[in-house]
Amino acid sequence: MTSRPENRHQARLLGLLRDDGPRSRAELGDVVKLSRSKLAVELDRLIDLGMVEAAGLAASRGGRRSGIVRLSSRLRFVGLDIGATSIDVAVTNGELEILGHIAEPCDVRQGPNTVLDRALELLAKLRDQGLAPEIHGLGVGVPGPVSFLEGRPVVPPIMPGWDRFPIREIISQELGCPVLVDNDVNLMALGELHAGLAKSVDDFLLVKIGTGIGCGIVVGSAIYRGVSGSAGDIGHIRVDDNGPTCACGNPGCLEAFFGGAALARDALAAARAGDSVILAERFASAGELTAADVAQAAQAGDPVAVELIREGGRRVGQVLAGLVSFFNPGLVIIAGEVAGGFGHTLLAEIRSVVYRRSAPLATGNLPIVLSELGDTAGVIGATRLISDQVFSAA
Amino acid sequence: MTSRPENRHQARLLGLLRDDGPRSRAELGDVVKLSRSKLAVELDRLIDLGMVEAAGLAASRGGRRSGIVRLSSRLRFVGLDIGATSIDVAVTNGELEILGHIAEPCDVRQGPNTVLDRALELLAKLRDQGLAPEIHGLGVGVPGPVSFLEGRPVVPPIMPGWDRFPIREIISQELGCPVLVDNDVNLMALGELHAGLAKSVDDFLLVKIGTGIGCGIVVGSAIYRGVSGSAGDIGHIRVDDNGPTCACGNPGCLEAFFGGAALARDALAAARAGDSVILAERFASAGELTAADVAQAAQAGDPVAVELIREGGRRVGQVLAGLVSFFNPGLVIIAGEVAGGFGHTLLAEIRSVVYRRSAPLATGNLPIVLSELGDTAGVIGATRLISDQVFSAA
Repeated sequence: MTSRPENRHQARLLGLLRDDGPRSRAELGDVVKLSRSKLAVELDRLIDLGMVEAAGLAASRGGRRSGIVRLSSRLRFVGLDIGATSIDVAVTNGELEILGHIAEPCDVRQGPNTVLDRALELLAKLRDQGLAPEIHGLGVGVPGPVSFLEGRPVVPPIMPGWDRFPIREIISQELGCPVLVDNDVNLMALGELHAGLAKSVDDFLLVKIGTGIGCGIVVGSAIYRGVSGSAGDIGHIRVDDNGPTCACGNPGCLEAFFGGAALARDALAAARAGDSVILAERFASAGELTAADVAQAAQAGDPVAVELIREGGRRVGQVLAGLVSFFNPGLVIIAGEVAGGFGHTLLAEIRSVVYRRSAPLATGNLPIVLSELGDTAGVIGATRLISDQVFSAA
Repeated sequence: MTSRPENRHQARLLGLLRDDGPRSRAELGDVVKLSRSKLAVELDRLIDLGMVEAAGLAASRGGRRSGIVRLSSRLRFVGLDIGATSIDVAVTNGELEILGHIAEPCDVRQGPNTVLDRALELLAKLRDQGLAPEIHGLGVGVPGPVSFLEGRPVVPPIMPGWDRFPIREIISQELGCPVLVDNDVNLMALGELHAGLAKSVDDFLLVKIGTGIGCGIVVGSAIYRGVSGSAGDIGHIRVDDNGPTCACGNPGCLEAFFGGAALARDALAAARAGDSVILAERFASAGELTAADVAQAAQAGDPVAVELIREGGRRVGQVLAGLVSFFNPGLVIIAGEVAGGFGHTLLAEIRSVVYRRSAPLATGNLPIVLSELGDTAGVIGATRLISDQVFSAA
C-alpha cells in the first residue's frame, strides 16, 4: 500500500477514522456531508486502495445493520524524536496508537551520521519484533530550527554538524517512505493535539522548558510556523535589561534566566557561596550540577532550590502573560524535562503571573496545565505530522 | 439583489473579481481549477443571481475573443469606522473602491444611540448623492473589544454605555442588510490586506498607536481573533516592573509608557518642570497638552518632544521584538494617529530595537513599515469584512 486518497472526501474519511477509530458507515454518514451512495463509493475506493478495511457489522440503529470500517490494520507510521540528549523511536498503527517504543540516551552533538544511524538501528530492532513489516510514513523531530519545506535543520545552535543536513531525503531514500522533519516543540504540540489535553482545542500554546525554552503554536488545529519557520522561538524574548547576558549576546533573555543551563549555573553559584548544603554536597560528589539536581534538592526541601524554581516560573510567566494577551489561546500546556521535574511548584508561579498580568478577556476561561503525555508527545506528534500528509489528497 | 453564492466555486469567483477587478472568462479559467464548461455554468449562474455582469469582450489571445465579466456595478458596501474621537463612513462598489467618504469628529463617550444615529445620518447624506441606492452589506469598527459572533462590544474601557449594545442587530434592522462588527484595529489590518502594503502577505501584524495601543493579527489572509476575540490586545503587556502605573492597575504596561494619554502626561510634566519652552508655551495658551502637541513640538525641533517619541518607540520596539520572535510575521505595519504624526522618528526606533532583539531567523526578511492608507484603512477593512461574508457560500 503506497496510495494516497484521491480527493478531499477520502482524505476527510481517513482523518476521521484515524482520530476517532473504527466507525460504522452510518456513523460516518452522520458526520460527513455526502449522500449515502457517494459515501459508499468513496469508502469502497479506499478499501480498494488498501487504506481502509471492513470490520464486521455495527449494532442495529433500528434498521439494517451498518458495516463497520476502520483504517487498514497493516498501516504503520514511525515517529522519531531526536532530543539534545536522547532518541525516542516509536511505531504506531494508522490510529497513531503506539505499538512499540524505544528510548535511549544519545548526544545530538555526535552529528547527523552517528545519530541517524543509531535511530535507524533502533527502528530496525522494533521491526525485528514484526511491528512494522511496511512503513507508510515517518516523522522526525529535532531540537532546533528547521526549514520545513526542505526537511533540514537551519543553523541549529545546539546541533553542531547538522546545519542543512538533508534529514528528510536521507531517511526517505533509506526506508522508501514519505518523511517530514520539524522542530521538536512543534511535534510535541501536535502530540498534545492528537492524544493529549488539547484534543478538542483549536488554538493553543505548548511551552517546552528543557535545555532551552520554546513554544509550539497551534492555530485552527494545525501548527503555525510563521513565514520563515521560526514561530515560537521565545527563548530569547527580553525579560529584563538588567538580567544576565545570554549565550545569544543580548542581556536578559528568558533563557538567560531559566532553562536547563541557567538553572545549572545558578545552582553552582549557590553551592559555591555556601547558600545550599544539599547543592554543595551534590556538587562535591558529582563535580557538576544539573537541572535534575535542582529538582531533587527542591523535592528534598532545599529552600534555595525551591526559590530558583519559583523565580524561573515567574520569568516564564512574565513572557507568557504577554503572549497570552497577544494570542488569546484556548489552552496553555507546560511541558519539557525541567517542567516535568518541578511540576506543580513551577505551574503555580506561572499561573500566578499570567492570571494577574494578561488581559482579563484572554484569561477568563484559560486553563494552564502540565502535559500528561510526557515522553511520548514528541513521537506521537511526529506520526501525526506525517499521517496528515499521507492522508491528504494528492 | 440579496443573493449569496450557491457553492464555493461561485464564492471563489466573486472573491477574485473583487480583489483583481474585471477579468475575461479565459483569465478566470487560468486561475480557478474548473473545466471551461463548468466555469461557464457558474459564471452564468452568478449573472442570473445579479452578482456579476458581462462587460464586453477582451482582446484576442489568439482565438475567439473571451467575454469580460465583472462584479455587478450595482453592488454597494458600507464601511463605518467609529473611533474614540471620530466617525468615518464610506460607500464602496463591489471591488471595495471608495465612491464616497465622510469623516467628522465625534466623541464615542456620547453613547451608542447618539453616535450610531449620527453615523446613519452621515450615511444618509452619502445616499442622498445617489451613491448607494441599495446596500448589500455594512461593516462596523469600534475602538474596543468585541464579541464578533454577537456583534456587540464587550466591557470596552473607553466606550461608556456601549457594553453589550447590539450594534449589529440595530443597524441590520434599520438598513435591512447583513452587518458585522469588529474591533477597529482588526479592520485596519483587513484594510491593509485588501488595499495596502500587506496585499500579498499571508501572515502579518498591524500595530496601531493611538489613544491606546493595539495589534491586528492576520494568519493565512484572515483575521486571527483568538478564542474569546481578544487577540492582539497588546497595550497592557508588561514592559518594565518599575514603570508608571497603568489605568488597568498594573505597573509598567506598554500603554502606561506610550500612546496618546501617556504622551500627554509626559508632555505636561516636561512643560511644568520647565524642560521644554515650546511645550510650556503651548500649555500656557491652550490649558492642556495632547499627543498632537508633542508631534508639533518635535517637528519644531524641541529636544524633549523628540526624546519622548524616541523613548516611546523603544518601548513599542521592546514589546514588538518579543511578538516578532513568537509570531514570525512576513510584515509589520505601524499605524494610528500617534504613528502618523511622528512618522519616521518613531519607525527608526522601533526598527532599531526589533532588528537587534528579535530572533535572527524571524527578522531576516522582515519589513517594518508605516501604513500608507491613513484614515481609509478602517473603512476599507470594514467593507472587506462584510464582503467576505456576503461573498461566501451560504
